[in-house]
Amino acid sequence: MDRSLAEIIKELRAHEKIFILTHQSPDGDTLGSAFSLCYALKQEKKQVKVLCSDPFPNKFGYLLAEYEDEDFIPDLIVSVDVADVKLLGDKTGIYADQIQICMDHHCSNRLDTVPMRYVDGKAAAACEVIYQLLCEMGSTITPLIADCLYTGIATDTGCFKFSNTTGRTHRIAAELMELGCHFETINRELFDTKSKARIEVERAVLSSMEFYFDNQVSMVAVPQKLLQESHMDPSDLDGIASLPRQIEGVEVGVTIKERPEGGYKVSVRTGKFADASEICGRLGGGGHMRAAGCFIQEDLETAKKLLVEAIRPVFTASKTGKVTTE
Amino acid sequence: MDRSLAEIIKELRAHEKIFILTHQSPDGDTLGSAFSLCYALKQEKKQVKVLCSDPFPNKFGYLLAEYEDEDFIPDLIVSVDVADVKLLGDKTGIYADQIQICMDHHCSNRLDTVPMRYVDGKAAAACEVIYQLLCEMGSTITPLIADCLYTGIATDTGCFKFSNTTGRTHRIAAELMELGCHFETINRELFDTKSKARIEVERAVLSSMEFYFDNQVSMVAVPQKLLQESHMDPSDLDGIASLPRQIEGVEVGVTIKERPEGGYKVSVRTGKFADASEICGRLGGGGHMRAAGCFIQEDLETAKKLLVEAIRPVFTASKTGKVTTE
Repeated sequence: MDRSLAEIIKELRAHEKIFILTHQSPDGDTLGSAFSLCYALKQEKKQVKVLCSDPFPNKFGYLLAEYEDEDFIPDLIVSVDVADVKLLGDKTGIYADQIQICMDHHCSNRLDTVPMRYVDGKAAAACEVIYQLLCEMGSTITPLIADCLYTGIATDTGCFKFSNTTGRTHRIAAELMELGCHFETINRELFDTKSKARIEVERAVLSSMEFYFDNQVSMVAVPQKLLQESHMDPSDLDGIASLPRQIEGVEVGVTIKERPEGGYKVSVRTGKFADASEICGRLGGGGHMRAAGCFIQEDLETAKKLLVEAIRPVFTASKTGKVTTE
Repeated sequence: MDRSLAEIIKELRAHEKIFILTHQSPDGDTLGSAFSLCYALKQEKKQVKVLCSDPFPNKFGYLLAEYEDEDFIPDLIVSVDVADVKLLGDKTGIYADQIQICMDHHCSNRLDTVPMRYVDGKAAAACEVIYQLLCEMGSTITPLIADCLYTGIATDTGCFKFSNTTGRTHRIAAELMELGCHFETINRELFDTKSKARIEVERAVLSSMEFYFDNQVSMVAVPQKLLQESHMDPSDLDGIASLPRQIEGVEVGVTIKERPEGGYKVSVRTGKFADASEICGRLGGGGHMRAAGCFIQEDLETAKKLLVEAIRPVFTASKTGKVTTE
């Protein structure tokens, strides 16, 4: 049932021992939401524990600065930034049926059987939702809580770059900065720090880069050997698929990733006029206008040739003026 | 003479034919300031021309969407984001003595002989200053003017990442977004687009990367041959010096750039405790705690050895507990 923030606050205040569940493969938004809420509830002398099916990544260690982990039996279970109970993962999935409050920002939220749900689909991050909650609760937003909330907002908006960013997002950021959040350090950690494995991957990917159709198509390959040898974390591949499209003048960016079981997983990203789902559709895949994918069960050279042929109509059509640009 | 915005506005309104000067090697802030002011003055039926010693870069073409260039004799000359007349460059430097209004945000501004100067050193960008001016003028901030102002702010703050960002910066961004600025397209152009030459440079730089002192020091070399062969724009090297320091766990990042006249220009960037100016000082250079440089007139291998020795005390001291971390 969808409820108001006032109802959620009343429920939180009626309990003493609270578990906060994050989603698995935790990111800055689910952790920022969980720890900011945790610290605010501790101001009200609650016992609070943050649970995640995966370990908290080291790079978010600063969010735990005042956190003391303890074991207890909860009388209330809250989920934050969890759009579907499947996303809880194995370890905390056992609490799925006991969630009493769900706080989220995904329009696609599927926790509709939870007794008290608050989903604001216009919020760029779950941390925007938690910020509103804490304001209405009258919590003191300490610099640490401000760091938690800023982390979630910066994570989910790509530091205010993505289309989900709104005027409200910026106004909340303004408040958090004036409340003492360490935005410069956080942003360096989130956006300007790369693992050695990531550098290995980027180096290899850039070395494999090929151009077609007068530099309007860029293709890179990610061999399985590289993925295995670089000891990389799955998150080290984040954003790799968008690398080829970032090159000036490139309309179609293609990333060809070798699968452990053989064959290739192909990601296609487009810029202004090419339809990625149409390109991938020709090879049995699909997706959206700007981002799509397909599988190719051939050797690398054949895969490239098939892709070039699947892309060719984009530029043929363009020359006859059939394609409209934005 | 430092003046109030009201005085500046009175002076602007007392004239009809206005030149706006930007600095050379124009960036998003000087151009965003110039064109937003230009469009606002055109609302008041002024004749306005934007002048720059260098061509306007293609990537900022969208700022010129409603600009019509014409030639006329000005009765007022304004400079925006120009901290020193030397930065005007050859072509517009001839107007240096005729500047009547200077609008800027550099604390170091040296245009103190200009009759009317308005410098707000707390503004993250000159566009923050121009935003205040336009608000006080009562200009209509059209989506195009919002695009100009957002471009300057995003450029000078690294999209709200750098330490110069303030609550005010975010509040202005909020206003601009609600006035219709195309922040997503602008940010993609500014931050997620790389030239082919830049990709070449990154590929070569990553391939040359070496690690020392248990991966706490990372060194890259940029050979002159690469710079010449890749047909790169000087701006393609922007930020290259900070690449090695971006790697997780790296405290000292070193970039060794070969000079056309022989020898090497070295840039050192440090993280939390190493003093870059001390390291470079040992080799006859200098700079700041986190960013410093020096020249080495030796071959590459000797240069690397000298650097390793200049860096060694950082980690020796560290082991004896003499070094404090932030």
